[in-house]
Amino acid sequence: MDLWFSELHTPYVKFSIQIDKQLHSEQTEFQRIDIFESKEFGRMMVLDGYVMLTEKDEFIYHEMIVHVPMAVHPNPKRVLIIGGGDGGTARELLRYKNVESVDLVEIDERVVDISRKYLPQTACSFDDERLHCYFEDGLKFIRHCNNEYDLIIVDSTDPFGPGEGLFTKEFYGNCYKALKEDGIMVNQHESPFYDEDAFAMQRAHQRIVKSFPISRVYQAHIPTYPSGHWLFGFASKKYHPVLDFDAKRWNALGLKTRYYNANLHNASFALPNYVEELMEDVEEKH
Amino acid sequence: MDLWFSELHTPYVKFSIQIDKQLHSEQTEFQRIDIFESKEFGRMMVLDGYVMLTEKDEFIYHEMIVHVPMAVHPNPKRVLIIGGGDGGTARELLRYKNVESVDLVEIDERVVDISRKYLPQTACSFDDERLHCYFEDGLKFIRHCNNEYDLIIVDSTDPFGPGEGLFTKEFYGNCYKALKEDGIMVNQHESPFYDEDAFAMQRAHQRIVKSFPISRVYQAHIPTYPSGHWLFGFASKKYHPVLDFDAKRWNALGLKTRYYNANLHNASFALPNYVEELMEDVEEKH
Repeated sequence: MDLWFSELHTPYVKFSIQIDKQLHSEQTEFQRIDIFESKEFGRMMVLDGYVMLTEKDEFIYHEMIVHVPMAVHPNPKRVLIIGGGDGGTARELLRYKNVESVDLVEIDERVVDISRKYLPQTACSFDDERLHCYFEDGLKFIRHCNNEYDLIIVDSTDPFGPGEGLFTKEFYGNCYKALKEDGIMVNQHESPFYDEDAFAMQRAHQRIVKSFPISRVYQAHIPTYPSGHWLFGFASKKYHPVLDFDAKRWNALGLKTRYYNANLHNASFALPNYVEELMEDVEEKH
Repeated sequence: MDLWFSELHTPYVKFSIQIDKQLHSEQTEFQRIDIFESKEFGRMMVLDGYVMLTEKDEFIYHEMIVHVPMAVHPNPKRVLIIGGGDGGTARELLRYKNVESVDLVEIDERVVDISRKYLPQTACSFDDERLHCYFEDGLKFIRHCNNEYDLIIVDSTDPFGPGEGLFTKEFYGNCYKALKEDGIMVNQHESPFYDEDAFAMQRAHQRIVKSFPISRVYQAHIPTYPSGHWLFGFASKKYHPVLDFDAKRWNALGLKTRYYNANLHNASFALPNYVEELMEDVEEKH
């Protein structure tokens, strides 16, 4: 038996993974959800045909979207996750004892249900008392939040389909409002390599630059995402991601990680020239 | 017309690129060489079925294999390239005015001929008087070199097929001997992500650690190589790749690059924990 899942990274580039078995397939109100079992990557969640996570490399995405801002903010207690129904971002956040509450706003409750059933590696924190789930549109949820959160993590799908609104100027403005005076927002920021992704990334960056005084981009190697070169956006009211990062403080927490570390923290903000240039084009237009 | 080139990155992972046209195909004494034209990546060179370079992303590989050691060594004049018949490494090296001579030892002369015909973007320096080509086995060439080079760049294929000997203990020992007392050797070091690649990488690293007092690994995002997460080995008799790197000196050269820059230089040596652990396993065995 020779069963392959394929994803087009561009109309001309295809990434394919051999599948042992399809464990689940469902069309929800919002999207199609598939769970596959694969030899190379373990279990995988695919939304509308795009790989969201695999058991083999999800640690990279989740560690980088969580530990970078958590290591910059000196005392993050209240956190909001927009999206993140697979539970991986919550898992990493709840390793911090000082975190008092995490609100997770996932538009599609079925993502949580299916993750709890098939992806126990990521969906392992839903019974934590500090985690509160809201099955609503993050775009609407955030409109009514004022001065509430230390950190907002936008763990969204791509800037089309259900995640589209999470890349708009209105949304970023509402995130700013929902954050405390020293709050931080981090979002998944697409890839700089293929033209269409880079354009989406530039557009998101331009909107964030307009909403936040401090806005930087950092990178990671995520093999199952297009080009493997993935960016995150770090937007902040007060703290600088490198200058206000205290490696000693983070190391003293004693958290064991597989990708993130204090050296990599600063290093991840050092971007290739071609990526810097994509950002500068945007910042000049601002 | 729907023509796709596919490469297996593991037995279970396939990367495919839509091809407009096959421009050349040839079985030489050493390997099969194919040149394709593609929409996404421009022209591509494929050796024995593996993508060696594409016009879209070759700048990343060639800048990172050349500028990192060139920015550490204070006065590199004589350089040896083992492999590198496409000319990209020579192109980057010859941008340095202080470089007096570059010896390029390519086992397969046809790689140079075909690159000059089809890949003028990389094969643009073969008429430079400082470049001397030797069409021999690098493994044999290096045996007769003593105290000659400031820098050796091992720009090889993978550690199987014609490139196999360039990952042996004997070869690294001879590179050490061929270098001056403050010489540096850099090599392409495979990927840490997929098990089989990581194993080859560990084995190469172990052999280099045994041959050189200073041995470090650095990384780059190369989308057309397996996993997109690529490593380079930096081995040195005297200079430390980070402590002896002088950003001001390199910036003063005024070389325009698209990937490499002084911030990225240090950052590229900050590895994820899981990669550090692969290295430590090897170093403990040493």
